[in-house]
Amino acid sequence: MARVVVDVMPKPEILDPQGKAVHGALDRLGFGGVADVRQGKRFELEVEGDITEERLAEIRTLAETLLSNPVIEDFAVRIEEPVSEDGLGA
Amino acid sequence: MARVVVDVMPKPEILDPQGKAVHGALDRLGFGGVADVRQGKRFELEVEGDITEERLAEIRTLAETLLSNPVIEDFAVRIEEPVSEDGLGA
Repeated sequence: MARVVVDVMPKPEILDPQGKAVHGALDRLGFGGVADVRQGKRFELEVEGDITEERLAEIRTLAETLLSNPVIEDFAVRIEEPVSEDGLGA
Repeated sequence: MARVVVDVMPKPEILDPQGKAVHGALDRLGFGGVADVRQGKRFELEVEGDITEERLAEIRTLAETLLSNPVIEDFAVRIEEPVSEDGLGA
């Protein structure tokens, strides 16, 4: 079992109202020194078996057709370390 | 200028209807071999100046209070390579 992460972010030239809202909130709350905020999506896929080149190509197709809208979003696919209990630290 | 990425994911014990919907769609579209899908958020902060320990602690507070809901979500903060044109590959 391997974990594949797909990050989907709005393209740089696309307005990002969610990121803008967060950025505005930072300023109001007194967190200075942040020039820009962009908000996107993160998908974690638990994939059965080993990750072959073929499998990865399939996941890229998936990321392009189902997980992102390539007109307005970029995506990145990467393999994470084998699933452990502390996948995300707090 | 440095880029700090904050990943926010639903805690493992929390139901994730978005991830479930994606997982169901995978099956219907014929992408087999995926055991589970979780969907979360990814924030990219462009932070001015150097990232000191103090600054990072501030960003962690921010992630905990503004970017995530610690009751139902875990977050992870990490520093990415200096901002380049091809931050996200396609």
